[in-house]
Amino acid sequence: MSLKKVLVTGGCGFIGSHLVDRLIEAGYFVTVIDNLSAKTTTEFLKHHIDRGRAEFFKYDIRNFNKLLALDRDYECIFHLAAQPDVKVSVDNPRLDFEVNTVGTFNILELMRQKDIKKMLFASSGGTVYGENPVFPTPETQPLRPISNYGAAKAACEMYCSSYSSLYELSITSLRLGNIFGPRSTHGVMFDFYNKLKKEPTRLEILGNGQQRKTYLYISDTVEAFILLYDHLSSGYDVFNVSSDETITVTEIARTIIEALNLERVRLEYTGGIRGWKGDVPYTSADITKLKDIGWKPRITIKEGIKKYINWLNEKERNQ
Amino acid sequence: MSLKKVLVTGGCGFIGSHLVDRLIEAGYFVTVIDNLSAKTTTEFLKHHIDRGRAEFFKYDIRNFNKLLALDRDYECIFHLAAQPDVKVSVDNPRLDFEVNTVGTFNILELMRQKDIKKMLFASSGGTVYGENPVFPTPETQPLRPISNYGAAKAACEMYCSSYSSLYELSITSLRLGNIFGPRSTHGVMFDFYNKLKKEPTRLEILGNGQQRKTYLYISDTVEAFILLYDHLSSGYDVFNVSSDETITVTEIARTIIEALNLERVRLEYTGGIRGWKGDVPYTSADITKLKDIGWKPRITIKEGIKKYINWLNEKERNQ
Repeated sequence: MSLKKVLVTGGCGFIGSHLVDRLIEAGYFVTVIDNLSAKTTTEFLKHHIDRGRAEFFKYDIRNFNKLLALDRDYECIFHLAAQPDVKVSVDNPRLDFEVNTVGTFNILELMRQKDIKKMLFASSGGTVYGENPVFPTPETQPLRPISNYGAAKAACEMYCSSYSSLYELSITSLRLGNIFGPRSTHGVMFDFYNKLKKEPTRLEILGNGQQRKTYLYISDTVEAFILLYDHLSSGYDVFNVSSDETITVTEIARTIIEALNLERVRLEYTGGIRGWKGDVPYTSADITKLKDIGWKPRITIKEGIKKYINWLNEKERNQ
Repeated sequence: MSLKKVLVTGGCGFIGSHLVDRLIEAGYFVTVIDNLSAKTTTEFLKHHIDRGRAEFFKYDIRNFNKLLALDRDYECIFHLAAQPDVKVSVDNPRLDFEVNTVGTFNILELMRQKDIKKMLFASSGGTVYGENPVFPTPETQPLRPISNYGAAKAACEMYCSSYSSLYELSITSLRLGNIFGPRSTHGVMFDFYNKLKKEPTRLEILGNGQQRKTYLYISDTVEAFILLYDHLSSGYDVFNVSSDETITVTEIARTIIEALNLERVRLEYTGGIRGWKGDVPYTSADITKLKDIGWKPRITIKEGIKKYINWLNEKERNQ
């Protein structure tokens, strides 16, 4: 009996590669497409391919004609491919637009033309709501992104909504909090780790350090994907996928300093409420809807940071 | 003293051409760009150009390089250019995406690159909310479009939000109800008029005729643009621009039949709650926000229909 097939876009990236592991564990054959930008490689995928459980195509979602070469027999598309950097989206809006908005439109067109019925879309809880007054923020909050990255994710959700209604698709958007953990090579924790490795006595912090956000550990994130895949029903739906907890940038710094057994590190702030243009200084997600279908985060933010720092240390030792 | 300049995209179209008239009346020099698709011509613009109050370029908003040839000294861009047909957006999603989403992104990029600070964006109140349970619908309602036309308008709003925040622009979206009146050559009223002219004894109605929506007469619409232009402030804002009233498709048919002095017209329904795929069967806008700044509709829907039918009759006589 042949295995059921799923497609994972961006499956060589941080979240994507963990999801691929989990889908293979659950018995699927996984097709991965990824453009291998931003130093991404197939390193986490290779053993799956060797064992005949996955295949890989170096496709870019901007190139629709390439996508048309794919099969049509996917049970579901897990669409995670994206330009991931908020700062890049601010400095180079068209690049971000083409990868994140046009690319996602291409995936939806692929579904329509190939009659692929299900998709889970990796949206962004940290950027689509913008700076709004309701905390914790429920999914019903109006979307007012203040970065082009957030605008792209929100724009794609609008098309997920119309496509699922018009062409009888089942699509769920996961508004992901700031996801972190092993294999992640960007974000504040990764930056702090690298800065401290280079210079263990001082740490520059962008903004005033009081930016307070939710973060979710990778294993909890992957379980949310699996659960929401099981719960997919016709039409469009959206879930916040994040933690109950929030943590400030300064607390993150202190947790990393502790995990690295450093002492007397001077924290130096660049000042201002934002770390960078388009940065949302406060996020707090209402995750009631996801909890109501049986999910909850199992790793606290601080536990997660320690696990992540251990992995980064391990990785460095093996280099 | 030279006149202040504004740019109107889609300025040869139905709403655009009326807005151009009004802006010229208010003392502006108006640059119009339009790709003259869908039988549009420069007929309503010609006398303004002859009098030195307007200029015209046959540009398509999909072509960003052409847009870059424009000046940078516009007080404001009134962005109305669009693929206007919901049905086309369902049957040819990529065409609609490229004109409405990519085209609007190009206009925003033009603003960023040329330092043009203000925009009014013609969004769509009838399609961005989708089928939702809150009536009349306030601007804060989550957007769940069920047509690609609505998805495009909603997607563009997301970019209006991020661009205004990131690059210090003042942008207001007008979520327009179904706008009608002289110069309109699509929509249910135009279709009924033409069907009845051809065959005055029967009228085919798409759906069950119970679709109930808001409609707004063109002169009230133009005044909303002018008022919101005067009220533009930094950042992003959004207003429903529609009528307090709603009317069913059957009532529209009866009003037109009366205006045409026809008798014994047989109404034939194709059935179903929607007129077509992607049609939203019920819309009712909460226009409190716009009324609070001093606007109100002056022409009732039925008065408007009679004025429109008179104009269509007049037009036919002059042909």
